Amino acid sequence: MKLYSYFRSSAAYRVRIGLNLKGLAYETVPVHLLKDGGEQLSAGYRAMNPTALVPTLDDGGLSVPQSMAILEYLEETHPDPALLPADAAGRARVRAIAQTIACDIHPLNNLRVLKYLKHNLKVSEQDKDDWYRHWVGVGLAAIEAMLANHPGTGRFCHGDQPGLADLCLVPQLFNARRFACDESAIPTIVRIDAACAELDAFRQAAPEQQPDYEAPKAA
Amino acid sequence: MKLYSYFRSSAAYRVRIGLNLKGLAYETVPVHLLKDGGEQLSAGYRAMNPTALVPTLDDGGLSVPQSMAILEYLEETHPDPALLPADAAGRARVRAIAQTIACDIHPLNNLRVLKYLKHNLKVSEQDKDDWYRHWVGVGLAAIEAMLANHPGTGRFCHGDQPGLADLCLVPQLFNARRFACDESAIPTIVRIDAACAELDAFRQAAPEQQPDYEAPKAA
Repeated sequence: MKLYSYFRSSAAYRVRIGLNLKGLAYETVPVHLLKDGGEQLSAGYRAMNPTALVPTLDDGGLSVPQSMAILEYLEETHPDPALLPADAAGRARVRAIAQTIACDIHPLNNLRVLKYLKHNLKVSEQDKDDWYRHWVGVGLAAIEAMLANHPGTGRFCHGDQPGLADLCLVPQLFNARRFACDESAIPTIVRIDAACAELDAFRQAAPEQQPDYEAPKAA
Repeated sequence: MKLYSYFRSSAAYRVRIGLNLKGLAYETVPVHLLKDGGEQLSAGYRAMNPTALVPTLDDGGLSVPQSMAILEYLEETHPDPALLPADAAGRARVRAIAQTIACDIHPLNNLRVLKYLKHNLKVSEQDKDDWYRHWVGVGLAAIEAMLANHPGTGRFCHGDQPGLADLCLVPQLFNARRFACDESAIPTIVRIDAACAELDAFRQAAPEQQPDYEAPKAA
């Protein structure tokens, strides 16, 4: 399998964790979102993934766009170890947490949206950062409420095995920290993130472990 | 089952179609997104769904937030008729189309985001409408490319049975039409939308068929 990835894309980061949790070997094909006006916008990449977003999974010639579709595909084609619990109620809970990140936080804060705010709407840097922190704050507060005091929450988001909710949560918290978002009101999320950080599957998927990693430029 | 719904919410509209396609009876509990500062923000609703968004499915006391998590839950608990094809590649394709709408178009254009643009960023009505049309345009163009000339596309997005991709597409096109988005470049989407409009499951889920429907106010 090949994963078209950008080191800092949190959607690609999710899939990297999922592949690692399942012990699946894959080749990383870097897609640089900032170079040459964005490699994801090239005709070649678009032919494979018309959304012009990363990641794309190539599984023996089958191209699958969209991180959540990729993860469900991996769950179906490589069921063991599972990313979802066995019971329908548990699966619904895990998917609801994952989708809250994938639908309600991440799309508002990804690169193309921040660019539109800056270039089309001429929003100030301060207002852009406030926008970012606003949607992270609202979204993570909702997830904290879904996790705290729920009997399904264990060492990880659902029970004591990491899965689909955790692999969405960790990249989102990584992003939140880049923008110095307030973590005081999300203790359960912070605790689960720390538990994930002890696992190789999460560590090896981190941006700084990727072949296309670039250190932040000095200010 | 109960569905906490708002007639114009395209996420609720998706689930209504899904319930209808599966022939499942349900009670609509209206949640008025505009009245009293937004009924979805009330403590009672948040206790059930911390994201403070519609829809929520209540299945015998189990609350499931997030439209895509609800639809996967319905697919698992009431598999027949199926919303997803049987093969993993087909399922991945359908989910990728659905997620392109659920993650890449809808979250950028929902009510809370338009409110933030207007009230926090003081964006003009024109710029707000341009924003709306921009993300609809980019997203539907990607979906048109995923559908046009793909051998999997049939009378509906995937083959000749309606499913998860169609029930996301129809509400999104309904929204696009409210904002008078250009449809000239998306002929396959327009054709599939027309095929869906012939089915009762889609018609009966439409905003104007809902108990909480309100006709647009005259300008």
